[in-house]
Amino acid sequence: MLLTSDAKGVFPIAPTPFLDDGAIDTASIDRMMDFYVGCGSTGVTVLGQLGEASKLEHAESLDVASRVIARAGKLPVVVGVSAPGFAAMRALTRDVMDRGAAGVMIAPPNTLRTDDQIVGYYRQAVEAIGADVPFVLQDYPLTFSVQMTPGVIRRIVQELPSCVMLKHEDWPGLEKISTLRGFEADGSMRHISILCGNNGLFLDYEMERGADGANTGYAFPDMLCDVVRLSQEGQREAAHDLFDAHLPLLRYEQQPGAGLAVRKYVLKRRGILASAAQRKPSAPLTEKARLEVEHLLARLARFDARAGRLVP
Amino acid sequence: MLLTSDAKGVFPIAPTPFLDDGAIDTASIDRMMDFYVGCGSTGVTVLGQLGEASKLEHAESLDVASRVIARAGKLPVVVGVSAPGFAAMRALTRDVMDRGAAGVMIAPPNTLRTDDQIVGYYRQAVEAIGADVPFVLQDYPLTFSVQMTPGVIRRIVQELPSCVMLKHEDWPGLEKISTLRGFEADGSMRHISILCGNNGLFLDYEMERGADGANTGYAFPDMLCDVVRLSQEGQREAAHDLFDAHLPLLRYEQQPGAGLAVRKYVLKRRGILASAAQRKPSAPLTEKARLEVEHLLARLARFDARAGRLVP
Amino acid sequence: MLLTSDAKGVFPIAPTPFLDDGAIDTASIDRMMDFYVGCGSTGVTVLGQLGEASKLEHAESLDVASRVIARAGKLPVVVGVSAPGFAAMRALTRDVMDRGAAGVMIAPPNTLRTDDQIVGYYRQAVEAIGADVPFVLQDYPLTFSVQMTPGVIRRIVQELPSCVMLKHEDWPGLEKISTLRGFEADGSMRHISILCGNNGLFLDYEMERGADGANTGYAFPDMLCDVVRLSQEGQREAAHDLFDAHLPLLRYEQQPGAGLAVRKYVLKRRGILASAAQRKPSAPLTEKARLEVEHLLARLARFDARAGRLVP
Amino acid sequence: MLLTSDAKGVFPIAPTPFLDDGAIDTASIDRMMDFYVGCGSTGVTVLGQLGEASKLEHAESLDVASRVIARAGKLPVVVGVSAPGFAAMRALTRDVMDRGAAGVMIAPPNTLRTDDQIVGYYRQAVEAIGADVPFVLQDYPLTFSVQMTPGVIRRIVQELPSCVMLKHEDWPGLEKISTLRGFEADGSMRHISILCGNNGLFLDYEMERGADGANTGYAFPDMLCDVVRLSQEGQREAAHDLFDAHLPLLRYEQQPGAGLAVRKYVLKRRGILASAAQRKPSAPLTEKARLEVEHLLARLARFDARAGRLVP
Repeated sequence: MLLTSDAKGVFPIAPTPFLDDGAIDTASIDRMMDFYVGCGSTGVTVLGQLGEASKLEHAESLDVASRVIARAGKLPVVVGVSAPGFAAMRALTRDVMDRGAAGVMIAPPNTLRTDDQIVGYYRQAVEAIGADVPFVLQDYPLTFSVQMTPGVIRRIVQELPSCVMLKHEDWPGLEKISTLRGFEADGSMRHISILCGNNGLFLDYEMERGADGANTGYAFPDMLCDVVRLSQEGQREAAHDLFDAHLPLLRYEQQPGAGLAVRKYVLKRRGILASAAQRKPSAPLTEKARLEVEHLLARLARFDARAGRLVP
Repeated sequence: MLLTSDAKGVFPIAPTPFLDDGAIDTASIDRMMDFYVGCGSTGVTVLGQLGEASKLEHAESLDVASRVIARAGKLPVVVGVSAPGFAAMRALTRDVMDRGAAGVMIAPPNTLRTDDQIVGYYRQAVEAIGADVPFVLQDYPLTFSVQMTPGVIRRIVQELPSCVMLKHEDWPGLEKISTLRGFEADGSMRHISILCGNNGLFLDYEMERGADGANTGYAFPDMLCDVVRLSQEGQREAAHDLFDAHLPLLRYEQQPGAGLAVRKYVLKRRGILASAAQRKPSAPLTEKARLEVEHLLARLARFDARAGRLVP
Repeated sequence: MLLTSDAKGVFPIAPTPFLDDGAIDTASIDRMMDFYVGCGSTGVTVLGQLGEASKLEHAESLDVASRVIARAGKLPVVVGVSAPGFAAMRALTRDVMDRGAAGVMIAPPNTLRTDDQIVGYYRQAVEAIGADVPFVLQDYPLTFSVQMTPGVIRRIVQELPSCVMLKHEDWPGLEKISTLRGFEADGSMRHISILCGNNGLFLDYEMERGADGANTGYAFPDMLCDVVRLSQEGQREAAHDLFDAHLPLLRYEQQPGAGLAVRKYVLKRRGILASAAQRKPSAPLTEKARLEVEHLLARLARFDARAGRLVP
Repeated sequence: MLLTSDAKGVFPIAPTPFLDDGAIDTASIDRMMDFYVGCGSTGVTVLGQLGEASKLEHAESLDVASRVIARAGKLPVVVGVSAPGFAAMRALTRDVMDRGAAGVMIAPPNTLRTDDQIVGYYRQAVEAIGADVPFVLQDYPLTFSVQMTPGVIRRIVQELPSCVMLKHEDWPGLEKISTLRGFEADGSMRHISILCGNNGLFLDYEMERGADGANTGYAFPDMLCDVVRLSQEGQREAAHDLFDAHLPLLRYEQQPGAGLAVRKYVLKRRGILASAAQRKPSAPLTEKARLEVEHLLARLARFDARAGRLVP
């Protein structure tokens, strides 16, 4: 079952669960996957930027991907294979596709500048991994410093049929979605799936601009699923009401670098992860920050009962 | 009346009002200033990043600064004097201080990398403008790509007595405030005023970390004044309630680049600016974005009546 | 007399001469200009990157440009007008064109990334300065971090008729010259003048690739004139022999940042400048470096007698 | 036999030889190593920036490193282990040290900015690879955009005893060598080996500033060995004469990106490599460039007979 451009809904970006001693926590992987499936996710992405992929050796990466795939049931699993060289990218892609991945996600190296460099990079990546492997184009200039115009994305989509999804994380990015959907409308670009990242910070309006859903790691993926569903059902104000209630915490979690600690902490408080541990190097939550997260959860619980169902 | 390290409260970052034909709109400057003074601001900053300073010729910059100063009454006015060379910085500083500015704001050029380069730059800037001119250190890595550690800020503060305020826009930045206030507590750094930028996206918790207020351009500076006051009075939940109600719009306005059009549009709808025009090059609000802003205002008006008092 | 796309030969990049106390040294300007004219230069560029333009106030910049223009006789003078905003660029352009400049040079701001941003920037610049002012496109990625593909340069040249010259400083850049001349040959781009910068580090082969000459500040512009002439006359080996003899010093002077001190020192030793002083902030020559330059001059003098005719 | 801070002489940066079909050319590895040993090299570095390391899968990297180590005899072999994550760096380090490497080379990721980030990165790297593995600090801001002041290098050297060598590629960099040797002289930093990169562009004066030799990939490592030897013997002018004769070609080969094709071409012409092939993605030599290299070789052969002993 390969990823296609018809993908919709929510693909949570899964963190990699560790035990306090740094070992991979397979029980938490299972629990997390069951939670994702149960709350209405339509796919999962692993070993992305926030999956601490660079802290895993190759064999560990395969173990994590395999376990996620096994537990995902019918849900497609996308695996991040960004690497400094095409040899490592090819090797990881081959190994995870063999184990049942539905596709891979490729971020641009932060040395790319010109339009031609960007298009050329994805051309070479497809040559390396094979044109039969569906891939997700990750557009995240805030972290990667690579700016892809809508025109460049169109060139990639038109030239490379295996590009089936855009992980949209440009910022600001609402007009980009409108422009890309406009390209589809005027026939100059084939349809691709657009799922939004950036912790969902603009998911409310991104859906209204034509996005197909979310592809991000906010610790309440169940909320993301609800907002996407409400939006698809046309329940606009209900979608915004729910989204706005989560916005204070969501914004807090979205902080670059610091966000992963918040995310793992909340997932632990929700009983999904056994530990909030990150492998080194890591930036753990300070006590002040932990109290702020607790404060945000308590305030959120007044509107969304899920934020009140916590374990110690 | 010069700026000192005791500054507290809200210093709005003023946009530069233009008429539809690009001329400077002096009537709107006056109205805007009266609004700032009336809503409880404790100072004003002009010709900053979002003041379209680079679209003004030198004489125009002086005119705007003079008019703002004249109308600010007792409020201290800080003028942005960032420039690619020290000659232009010195010239503008001299001219605005002569006209009654309380101090200047200096952003680092985006070519600075090492700690020593950053400290050296501010040393040279003070040599250029004179050690008697109070200055605001602008720490905005998202736009300037210059990363100042707390240790670097401490070196600047300790070496340069005319540094009296930090415009704090690091992101994430809460721990930075705690670290700097920790330096003050342990006696390794003298006290400076810390006012927060970034459109106020984290103002709620920044105040709790020890910030003295806000120094940003959100189109509801009256809300910023209220939140700062509530926070200073210890009314924690009331501060968060008001802040959270504004967060959806505030987040929307905070988008880099796109935010200025939103800000000017809202200020126009509030009757403060006569026109939302920007000088070229500009990125005007699309119709889709305009409708989103209207939607955000309508939703906000349910909680804050000020968002409902609009002019056509 | 305006700059045209037929320009050929050597346009030295003039430093700004200062006296030891930082005052502008007008006598040295005159002597330098007489030297440039006398050695066969075909134009002059002032207030460029290495002209310490950012250390001059507006009035000083005009004084320098005026004096250079007055003394240049029939030679066209190009003035660097790069600025962080179009208002300052327009003001300086207007003022120097009024004083008789032949055109202006515009470098891209280092925030530009995508092809469209680069083309858009030059479109706006032309709108600001007027389509009747000939301009030089400066392509210097090493310093400006802006990468212009040949395709982007072609878009600028085709869209903006006032673009008449490329200051070619890409590195590596030989293939770029061949590609651009290929565009002219296949009719997809009109002819422009290509003068090479980068201190002339590849001038020997750049001429053979189709460049029209040099536009750089090496302290022996007379050598640059000779190499361009020999190359144009088809005296290939003679051109290389002369160039190679200068290469050790030329390479030394080409070091970013450090090069200006070397350049001014050598120009002083040659009796052209009265002082090697730079305005602050500056990086003066260390004693070790000074001795290295002397060593390089002594070695060069064995092949080129001009390096032996020095003043104390 | 581990690398120590007493290392001197020339450690060529070895390219990875491929056959025309992209397979690793083991016969050429042997021939190249015999050449390095025979011409007086004192060590070898493999899998560096220019070794196309990112185009090798993990097992291939180990094969190349093993073969190089086996053929190096008593010469220490340094292996580049720079990686986006510490897990991959640790795995590769462990594997190559097991196979007899003398140490590893670590470049900084190009996201590092502040002094503390740089020092922290190397601290974490040592934690990952083990404090018993000698490492080479690679200081190459032109490619990595990471600027290490002498003070930062001193902090790393003083804090991390396993840092035994600096691969010096700052540009300009002469003063940096003087400053670091000054730190040693004033007792504030222990002695480390400084070998210079950047294709040797300033090797002549770097030796005079206190460098211990070269660590770069210029296609005439025998010339580098001669220059280092002559310099160490105090034969200053002879060293410069030889160096200057090579400078035109050396400069040509030093072009970022384009240089590898030149280097492999010349090594093939010298009979050391069987093929100049690079693995994709690659930038092959154009015919114009190839003729320029031939021209440079022919001119060089007038002074250095080795440039005339070529194979077809």
